[in-house]
Order: sequence, then C-alpha cells, then structure tokens
Amino acid sequence: MGIEGADMIVAATYIGAGIAMGLGAIGPGVGQGMVGAKACEAIGKNPSEAPLLTRTMLVGQAVAESTGIYSLVVAMLLIFVV
Amino acid sequence: MGIEGADMIVAATYIGAGIAMGLGAIGPGVGQGMVGAKACEAIGKNPSEAPLLTRTMLVGQAVAESTGIYSLVVAMLLIFVV
Amino acid sequence: MGIEGADMIVAATYIGAGIAMGLGAIGPGVGQGMVGAKACEAIGKNPSEAPLLTRTMLVGQAVAESTGIYSLVVAMLLIFVV
Amino acid sequence: MGIEGADMIVAATYIGAGIAMGLGAIGPGVGQGMVGAKACEAIGKNPSEAPLLTRTMLVGQAVAESTGIYSLVVAMLLIFVV
Amino acid sequence: MGIEGADMIVAATYIGAGIAMGLGAIGPGVGQGMVGAKACEAIGKNPSEAPLLTRTMLVGQAVAESTGIYSLVVAMLLIFVV
Amino acid sequence: MGIEGADMIVAATYIGAGIAMGLGAIGPGVGQGMVGAKACEAIGKNPSEAPLLTRTMLVGQAVAESTGIYSLVVAMLLIFVV
Amino acid sequence: MGIEGADMIVAATYIGAGIAMGLGAIGPGVGQGMVGAKACEAIGKNPSEAPLLTRTMLVGQAVAESTGIYSLVVAMLLIFVV
Amino acid sequence: MGIEGADMIVAATYIGAGIAMGLGAIGPGVGQGMVGAKACEAIGKNPSEAPLLTRTMLVGQAVAESTGIYSLVVAMLLIFVV
Amino acid sequence: MGIEGADMIVAATYIGAGIAMGLGAIGPGVGQGMVGAKACEAIGKNPSEAPLLTRTMLVGQAVAESTGIYSLVVAMLLIFVV
Amino acid sequence: MGIEGADMIVAATYIGAGIAMGLGAIGPGVGQGMVGAKACEAIGKNPSEAPLLTRTMLVGQAVAESTGIYSLVVAMLLIFVV
Amino acid sequence: MGIEGADMIVAATYIGAGIAMGLGAIGPGVGQGMVGAKACEAIGKNPSEAPLLTRTMLVGQAVAESTGIYSLVVAMLLIFVV
Amino acid sequence: MGIEGADMIVAATYIGAGIAMGLGAIGPGVGQGMVGAKACEAIGKNPSEAPLLTRTMLVGQAVAESTGIYSLVVAMLLIFVV
Amino acid sequence: MGIEGADMIVAATYIGAGIAMGLGAIGPGVGQGMVGAKACEAIGKNPSEAPLLTRTMLVGQAVAESTGIYSLVVAMLLIFVV
Amino acid sequence: MGIEGADMIVAATYIGAGIAMGLGAIGPGVGQGMVGAKACEAIGKNPSEAPLLTRTMLVGQAVAESTGIYSLVVAMLLIFVV
Repeated sequence: MGIEGADMIVAATYIGAGIAMGLGAIGPGVGQGMVGAKACEAIGKNPSEAPLLTRTMLVGQAVAESTGIYSLVVAMLLIFVV
Repeated sequence: MGIEGADMIVAATYIGAGIAMGLGAIGPGVGQGMVGAKACEAIGKNPSEAPLLTRTMLVGQAVAESTGIYSLVVAMLLIFVV
Repeated sequence: MGIEGADMIVAATYIGAGIAMGLGAIGPGVGQGMVGAKACEAIGKNPSEAPLLTRTMLVGQAVAESTGIYSLVVAMLLIFVV
Repeated sequence: MGIEGADMIVAATYIGAGIAMGLGAIGPGVGQGMVGAKACEAIGKNPSEAPLLTRTMLVGQAVAESTGIYSLVVAMLLIFVV
Repeated sequence: MGIEGADMIVAATYIGAGIAMGLGAIGPGVGQGMVGAKACEAIGKNPSEAPLLTRTMLVGQAVAESTGIYSLVVAMLLIFVV
Repeated sequence: MGIEGADMIVAATYIGAGIAMGLGAIGPGVGQGMVGAKACEAIGKNPSEAPLLTRTMLVGQAVAESTGIYSLVVAMLLIFVV
Repeated sequence: MGIEGADMIVAATYIGAGIAMGLGAIGPGVGQGMVGAKACEAIGKNPSEAPLLTRTMLVGQAVAESTGIYSLVVAMLLIFVV
Repeated sequence: MGIEGADMIVAATYIGAGIAMGLGAIGPGVGQGMVGAKACEAIGKNPSEAPLLTRTMLVGQAVAESTGIYSLVVAMLLIFVV
Repeated sequence: MGIEGADMIVAATYIGAGIAMGLGAIGPGVGQGMVGAKACEAIGKNPSEAPLLTRTMLVGQAVAESTGIYSLVVAMLLIFVV
Repeated sequence: MGIEGADMIVAATYIGAGIAMGLGAIGPGVGQGMVGAKACEAIGKNPSEAPLLTRTMLVGQAVAESTGIYSLVVAMLLIFVV
Repeated sequence: MGIEGADMIVAATYIGAGIAMGLGAIGPGVGQGMVGAKACEAIGKNPSEAPLLTRTMLVGQAVAESTGIYSLVVAMLLIFVV
Repeated sequence: MGIEGADMIVAATYIGAGIAMGLGAIGPGVGQGMVGAKACEAIGKNPSEAPLLTRTMLVGQAVAESTGIYSLVVAMLLIFVV
Repeated sequence: MGIEGADMIVAATYIGAGIAMGLGAIGPGVGQGMVGAKACEAIGKNPSEAPLLTRTMLVGQAVAESTGIYSLVVAMLLIFVV
Repeated sequence: MGIEGADMIVAATYIGAGIAMGLGAIGPGVGQGMVGAKACEAIGKNPSEAPLLTRTMLVGQAVAESTGIYSLVVAMLLIFVV
C-alpha cells in the first residue's frame, strides 16, 4: 500500500499545527480586544493620562499575547522541526 | 492503489490551513470590534480627543491583529512552504 | 480504483476553503456590528460630530475586516492557486 | 467501481459551499442586527437626526455585510467555477 | 455496485443545501429580532415618530435579511441548478 | 447489494430537510421572542399606543419570520420536489 | 445482505424527524419565555392593562410559535407522508 | 448477516425519539423558568395582583409548553406508532 | 456473526434513553433555578408575602418541571416498554 | 467473532448511564447555585428573615434537584436493572 | 480475534465513568461558585451576619453538591461494581 | 491480530481519565474564580473585615473544589487502580 | 499487522494527556482572570489596601489554580508514569 | 502494511500536542484580557496609583499565565521528550 507510517506522522503534524494555531488565536484575540476597549474608554474620560494608559494597554496586551505566541511556537515546531 | 502517502500529506495540509485561518479569524475579529466600539463611544463623548483616541484604537487593534496574522502565517506556510 | 490521490487533494482543498471562509466570517461580522452599533449610538447623542464618528467607524471596521480578508485570501488560494 | 475521483471532488465542492454560506451568514446577520437595533434606539431619542442616522446605519451595515458577501462569493465559486 | 458517483454528488448537494439554509437562518433571525425589539421600545417611548421608526426598522431588517437570502440562493442553486 | 444510489439520495434528502428546519427554527424563534418581549414592556409603559405597538410588533416579527419560512421552503422542496 | 435501500430511507426519515423537532423546539421555547416574562413584569407594574397585555403576549407568542409548528409539520411529514 | 433492515429502522426510531425529547426539553424548560422568575418578582413588588399574575404566568408557560409537547408527541409517535 | 438485529435495537434504546434524560434535565434544572432565585429575592424584599411567593414559586417550578417529566417518561418507555 | 450482541447491549447501557448522569448534573447544579446565590444576597440584606429565606431556598433547590434525581434514577436503572 | 465482548463492556464502562464525572463536575462547580461569590459580597456589606451567611452558603452549596455526588456515585459504580 | 481486548481496556481507561480531569477542571476553576473575584471586591470596600472575608472565600472555594477533587479521584482510579 | 496493542495504549495515553491539559487550562485561566480583574478594580478604588488585596488575590488565584495543577498532574502521569 | 505502531504513537503525540496548546491558550488569553481591561479602567480613574496597579496587573496576569505554561510544557513534552 502506498500510505507509509511516516506519511501519516507528517499529516498528523500538519493537522495538529492547524488546530493549535486556530484555537490558540481565539483567547488572545478576545482578551486583547477587552484590554484595548477599556483603554480607549479610559483615555476618552481622562485624556491627560493617555501615555500612561497606552503603555499599560500595551503591557497588558503583550502578556495576553503570550499564549498566542506559545501556540505559534507549537505550530511552527510541528511544521518545521518535527 | 491510487492514493499515495504524499497525497494524504498534502490533503491534510490544506484542511489544516482552513482550520487555522477559519478559527483564527474569530478572536481578532471580535476583539477588534470591541476596541472600535469603545473608541466610537469615547469619541462621541469627547470629540476633541479624536486623534488621540483614533491612534489608541489603531494601536490596540494592531496588537489584537497579531494572532490573526499568526494564523495567516501558519496557513500560508501550510499551503506554500510545506 | 477510480479515486486517485490527486482527486483527494482537490476535494480536501475545497472543504478547507469552505471551512476557512465560513468560520472566518463570524468574527469580523460580529465585530463590525459592534463598531457600527456604537457609532449609531454616539451619533444619536452627538450629531454634530457625525463626520468624525463615521470616519472612526469606518477605520475601526476596516481593521476588523482584516481577518475576514485573510480568510478570503486563504479560501481563494485553496480554490485557485493550489 | 462506480465512484470516480472527479465525482468525489464535485461532492466535496457542494458540501464546502453549504458550510461556507451557512456559517458565513451567522456573523453578518447578528452584526447587522446590532447596528439596526442601536440605530432605531438613537432615532427614537433624537428623531431630527434620522437621515444622518439612517445613512450611518446603512454604511455600518454595508461594511458588516462584506464578509457575508465573501462567503457568497466563495460558495458561488465552489458551485459554478470549480 | 449500485452506488454511482453521480448519486453521491446529488446526495452531497442536498445535505449541503440543508446545512446552508439551516445555519444561515440563525444569524438573520436573531439580528432582525434585535432590530424589531429596539424599534418597539423606541416607539413606546416616542410614539409620534412611529412612521419614521417603522421605516428605519424595516430598512435595518431588510439589510440584515441579506445573508439569509444569500443562504436561500445557495440552497436553491444546490437543489435545482447543480 | 440492496442499497442503490437513488436510495442514498432520498435518505440524504430527508436528513437534509431535518437539519434545515431544525436549525432554521432557532433564530426566528429567539428573535421573535425578543420583539414580543419588548412590545409587552412598551405597552405596559404606554398602553395608549397599544394598537401602534402591536402593529409594529407584528411587522417586526413577520420580517424575522422570513428566514424561518425560507427554511420551511427548503425542507419542503427537499421532501416533496426533489 | 439484509439491509435494503428502502430501509435506509425510512431510518433516515426518523432520525431527520427527531433532529427537526428537537432542535426546532429550542428557539420558540426560549422566545415565548421571553415574551411571557416581560408580560408578567409589565402586568405587575401596570395591572389595569392586564387584558391588553395578555392579548399582546398571546399574539406575540403565537407568532413565535410559528417556527415550532413548521418543525412539527416537517417532522410529521417525515414520519407519516414520506 | 443477522442485522435486517427492519431492525435498523427500529433502532433509528428510538435514537430519534431520544434526540427529539432531549433537545426539545431545553427550550421550554428555560423559557418557563424565565416566565416564573419574572412572575415571582412581580408578585413580590405588587402582591395585591397575585391572582392576575399567577394566571398570566400560567398562560404564558402553557404556550411555552407547546413545543415541549410537540417534542413529546413526535417522540411518542416514533416509539409507538411508527 | 454474533450481533443480531434485535440486540442492536436494544442497544439503541438504552443510548436513546441516556440522551433523552441527560439533555432533558438541563432546561428544567436551569429554569427552576431561575424561578427559585427570584422567589428568594422577592421574599427577602417583601417577607410578609412569603406564603404567596412560595406558592407562586412552586406552581412556576411545577410547570417548568413538565418537560423534565416528559423526558423521564420517554426514557422509561425506552428502557421498560419498548 | 468474540463480540456477541448481548455484550454490545451492556456496553451501550453503561455509555448511556454515563451520558444521562453527566449531562443531567449540569442543569440542577447551575440552577441550585442561582437559588443559593440569591438566598445569600437576600439574607445579607434582610437577616431577620433568615429562617424563612433558608426554607424557601431549600424548597426551591429541592424542586430543582428533581431532574438531577431523574437522571440518577435513569442511570441506576441502566446500570442495575436493565 | 483478540477482542472479546467482555473486554468491550469494561472499556465502555471506563469511558462512561469519565464522561459522567467530567461533565457532572461542571454544573456543581459553577453553581457553588455563584453561591460563594454572593456570600462574600453579602458578608462584605453586612459583616455582623457572617455566621448566618456562612451557614446559608454552606447549606446552599451542600445541596448544589448533590448532583456532583450522584455523578461520583455513578462513576464509582461503573468502575468498581459493574 | 496484535490488538488484544486487555489493551483496548487500558487505552479506554486513559482516554476516560483525560476526559474526566479535563472537563472536571472547568467548573471548579470558573466557580472558584467567581468566589475570589467577589472576595477581592468586598475586601476593597470593607478592608476591616478582611480576615472574615478571606475565611469565607476559602471555605466557599474549598466546597467548590470538591467536584474537581472527585474528578481527580476518578482519573487516578482509572489510571492506577483499574 | 504492525500495530500492536501496546502501541495503541501509548497513543491513547498521549491523546488523553492532551485533552486533560487542554481542557483543564480553560477553567482556571478564566477564573484567575476574574480574580485579578476585580483585584485591580479594588486597588484602583482603595489603593491604601493594596498589600491586603494583593494577598487576597494571590490566595484566591492559588486555590483556583488547583484544578489546573490536577490536570497537569494527570497529564504528566499519563505521559511519564503510565 | 506500511503503518507501524510506533508511527501511530508519534502521530497521536503531535495531534495531542496541538489539542493541548490550542485549547490551553483560550482560558489564559481571555483571563489575562480581563485583568488588563480592569487595570486600564482603574488607572484611568486613579492615575496616581499607576505603578501599583501595573504591578498588580502583572502579578495577576502572571498567575493566570500558569495554566497556559502548563499547556506549553505538556505540548513540548509530547513533541520532544516522548
């Protein structure tokens, strides 16, 4: 038969990469949106603190980004390294 | 048999790309919508700060975009590079 | 047998395109609706800022559109290029 | 056997079209409803701005329509062109 | 064997039509309900603007109807044309 | 074998009809409930406008009914015409 | 083999009827509950309008019932007529 | 083989009955709970109207019950009549 | 083969009973909880009406119980009678 | 073959019991939590009515428990009696 | 073949136990959290009633625990007794 | 064949343990978060009652932990004892 | 055949570990986020109590962490010990 | 046959890694977003406490990160060590 075990591994790898990145983008996307929404609201009420709030927003989003990056790393590892 | 292992890998790659981009577009889309909604609300209350709020909105959305771009990258890699 | 590997790849491509575009339209659709809803609310309260708010709404929606366009691009690539 | 690869491709195309249009109609439908709901609310409070609000509502809904149209395009391509 | 490829295509077409119309009716149904709910609320508060609000409601619902109609079109195409 | 292709088509048709009507009843049912709920609330606050509000409610629900009717049409077509 | 195509059609019919009625009862049940809840609230605040509100509630629920009845019709057709 | 087509039909009937009643109990259960919750709230605020509110609650719940009864009818038909 | 059609019917009956009772317990459980929650809130605000509110709560819960009992009946029928 | 029909029935029974109890515990658990939460809130505001509220809470929870007990009964029947 | 029917029964038992306990832990966990959250809120507002509120909280949680314990019992029966 | 029934039992055990612990961690995690969130809010408003509130929080969380521990016990039993 | 039962056990172990950790991370992640969000809000209103609130937050999060750690333990056991 | 058991183990490992990281990124992403959103809101109201709030936000997010890191660890173990 033409389907070898090594082929099945590679196919599983690519499906796994798709699942990891696709699901992994939902949480950070929604979470960063919450942060950005509240930052806009806060700046609208208190514009004089815009630099401080922008910085806080970016720090908060950067941390929320982390699990998205983990997902990217896992997907990349599954595509290239494995 | 006509189905070779290499064919199965390619098929898995394309299904994986579809899953990665399809699911990966949900989070950023909703998150960016939250940011934009609050920015419109804030500008409506405080129009004199519109440039500042538009800039904050764009920065917040750009960060929320990131996981969507990761998904695009993973999908592209699965389609073209693999 | 009549089913060749190349046929399976093409079939997987079309299913993948359907998944990518179908799921990818949920997030931006809801997100853009949030932006538009808040813009209408803000213009109703502060009509004199309508041009500014319409512009902000369009910018916010354009960014939220991005992941929908990525999904379209991935679906198109899966249909035509692959 | 009576099932040829070309038949499987066509079947996959039609299933894919159904998924793309069915899922792709959820997001814009809900999003446009949000926009319309807020527009009615705003016109009820501030009827003198009805033309402006109707225009804003239509622009906001038109943009939210975009991913629905993409889904239609993908479904049409899968049905007729492929 | 009694199952020909052409039969499988037709079966896939009908399943696809069911998915497209069934899922595609969720979004517009909920969205139009939101528009109608807010229109009733607004007319109750400001009955003198009822014609204007009814018109706005109908326009908003007509646009939200669009993706439902796309779904119907795709389902009809899958049933009759394909 | 006793299963012919034509049988499979008919079976697919009936499953498709069940999916189309079952899913297609969720959206309009919830949407019409929203409209009716707000109409009752509005009439309770402003009973003198009851005829106007009842009319608005019925118009809003009739439009929200549309996708439910599309689903019924698709289900009927799948059962009787196909 | 003992499984004939006609048997498979009948089995598909009964599964389809179960799906159509089961899913189709969710939307109207929730929607009618919303209408009834708001009607009770409104009568509690404004008892003198109870006949008017009860009538409005029943009309609103009757319309929301429609898709539930469609589902019943489709299920009955699948069980008895097909 | 020991599995006849008639057996498969009966098995499908019982699975279908379980799906119809199980899913069909969700909507009315939640909807009737909403009605009852609001009725309790309204009676707590306005106890002198308790008979009127109880009657309204029961009417509202009876209508919301309808789709649950349809589900029961379909399940019974699938179990006994078919 | 050792699996007879009659065995498959019985197995389907028990799976169907599990689905009917399991899903059918969700709606009434949540709905009765809503009624009880509001009753406690109302009694806390207006303790002198406790008997009336307790009676209303029990009536409301009894009606919401109905679809749960239907599910139990269907499950029992599937287990013992069929 | 070593798998007899009677074995399949028993296996189906145990899977069915797991589904019935697992799903059937969600609704009452959430519903009883709502009742308990509101009872705590009400006692905090009006501690002098604590016995009355505790009794109401227990009655409300006992009724909400009913569908959980039905699920337990069905699961027990599937495990021991069938 | 090496797979006997008795093995399949045991395997089904363990899968069933996992489903029963896993799903059955969701409802009570969330419900008890609601009770505890409201109890903390109430004690924060009215600390002098802390013993009464703690007792109410524990009683409310104990009842909400019940379906979790039923799930545990079913899982244990499936693992040890069956 | 190399797959024995005893192997299948062990495999089912491990899958069941994963499902039990994975699903069983959702409810307590969310519920404990609710308790902790309200406790922080209450301490922020009324810091002098911090020891009392911390104790209440811990008691409430400990009870909400219970179903998580049941899940762990079931998973452990499935891994080690069975 | 090349697939032995021992291989299937190991494969099931790894899939089970993935399910346990993946699902088990959802609840604590959301719950800890709720605690942290309320703690930030409370500190912003009452900064003088920051040490007390930070401690409460950490205690509350540590307890909410517990089911996440159970999931990790189960996943580790499935990977290394089994 | 070309598929060996060792191949199936490796394939299961990669699918499991994808599931663990993909699902495991949802909870922390949403939870960290909640923390960041409330921190921005609090700083906007009380900018003089920005360092304290930023520190609290980072601590709260770091704890919420933990289950995401567990997921990464499990995914890494499944990819490299197993």
